[in-house]
Amino acid sequence: MDHDAAPGRYTPDEARALFRGGLSVPTAGWATGWAQANLLALPRADAYDFLLFAQRNPKPCPVLDVTEPGATSASVFAGDLRTDVPAYRVYRDGELVEELTDVSEVWRDDLVAFLVGCSFTFESALLDGGVPVRHLEAGSNAPMYRTDRECRPAGALSGPLVVSMRPVPADKVADAVRITARYPAVHGAPVHVGDPGALGITDLGTPDFGDAVEIRPGEVPVFWACGVTPQAAVMRSRPAFAISHAPGHMAITDARDAQYVVP
Amino acid sequence: MDHDAAPGRYTPDEARALFRGGLSVPTAGWATGWAQANLLALPRADAYDFLLFAQRNPKPCPVLDVTEPGATSASVFAGDLRTDVPAYRVYRDGELVEELTDVSEVWRDDLVAFLVGCSFTFESALLDGGVPVRHLEAGSNAPMYRTDRECRPAGALSGPLVVSMRPVPADKVADAVRITARYPAVHGAPVHVGDPGALGITDLGTPDFGDAVEIRPGEVPVFWACGVTPQAAVMRSRPAFAISHAPGHMAITDARDAQYVVP
Repeated sequence: MDHDAAPGRYTPDEARALFRGGLSVPTAGWATGWAQANLLALPRADAYDFLLFAQRNPKPCPVLDVTEPGATSASVFAGDLRTDVPAYRVYRDGELVEELTDVSEVWRDDLVAFLVGCSFTFESALLDGGVPVRHLEAGSNAPMYRTDRECRPAGALSGPLVVSMRPVPADKVADAVRITARYPAVHGAPVHVGDPGALGITDLGTPDFGDAVEIRPGEVPVFWACGVTPQAAVMRSRPAFAISHAPGHMAITDARDAQYVVP
Repeated sequence: MDHDAAPGRYTPDEARALFRGGLSVPTAGWATGWAQANLLALPRADAYDFLLFAQRNPKPCPVLDVTEPGATSASVFAGDLRTDVPAYRVYRDGELVEELTDVSEVWRDDLVAFLVGCSFTFESALLDGGVPVRHLEAGSNAPMYRTDRECRPAGALSGPLVVSMRPVPADKVADAVRITARYPAVHGAPVHVGDPGALGITDLGTPDFGDAVEIRPGEVPVFWACGVTPQAAVMRSRPAFAISHAPGHMAITDARDAQYVVP
């Protein structure tokens, strides 16, 4: 199967087969209608701290699924967690030591994998609602930024809130809020609209993760809580070992977007 | 302070002072406008299994707050968790060994306390919406039943779903659903309306916890997921030690009901 120009048409299985084969791309716009997820795998000994961190910070860390220790698939992810995500990051003592497309060699039997909701999940609803999504138009990764807002710590874990940003025409901001508020399990409504300085972001042109996007006249930067927040906590808190997805290179799940909509 | 006939007027502090003084009563109808919570305290070594059990069973186990190990108060509960709940149950190896009004003597420094949402929280909204609540009229505890529905297990914890029941006039059932659906953090919409047999409940007149209530002609039994579910999991799964509230004798929190309403 070749990677064609319409990745939105792939099923989760098809997309995961491509990634397992080595394709490594950001997944915004892929497998339309299927939820995407952030991955964080930690040793069982560190799992309580993260699950509590997520409970205390549900906006950036909405947990969709948690595996049994050592399991390589999940209820919402029938693929192989070690190979079927397009890119991974390996952290040792909080340092990013490797970016890999296959983590079979470093996977451990005591790892618990957390799948955390991703805002890519509501992007097709934004498009359907007439709200443009710049990084989809550009074919790039979404821009993500560390903020100066602290998450509530839990045990050994602390760190800043990370946000994704989408430039939205001023007359569509209310629509963007209304539409995304219906998806609390994939970050829900924006945490901030407008002035990036108020979040401690000094330059939208140099995101901490992902790619910068153009902000056109009449557009307002809108910020959503982001599932890279767990990685920022790993970097700050330095657990001995962790594996995550690479920002924007998500796990494509077997759950439908619609499963996470509230009426 | 004497316990008067209008406990709905108490503030959380006033109610907790009465309980600390030894008053032991079911708390339905108490401290109107303030959220009530189920309590489960487990050793830190067992806390991950319970937090994961809650994550996997959010309808019966919506976690409102989790304490640090050994802490005796919580973000949403400024009182003393060892004395300010009207009645406690102490479990050893899954057996209920004591019911106490003060657990200071058996509290341990490694206990993590979980506060789990309680459906008493939405009862004033039901009354405001014209839906009668029989156990409030009767001045009794709510009836609660083990069902034959299994929760998703987590680690060493498994157990059945427990439900509370309120008889609702047939023409008010839709209102009861609509109103309680707005409170997902305190069990939300009913899990079942009508036939108790379909939940494996053979006799509504003999609840597993709390008091039986009259079901009048034209009323339908309506079942909500119940925060006694964690106790049923303790009884089934037999962790070495656990402390809970006594069913219906809840922790009255410092959180407003309104804090848990979704628009």
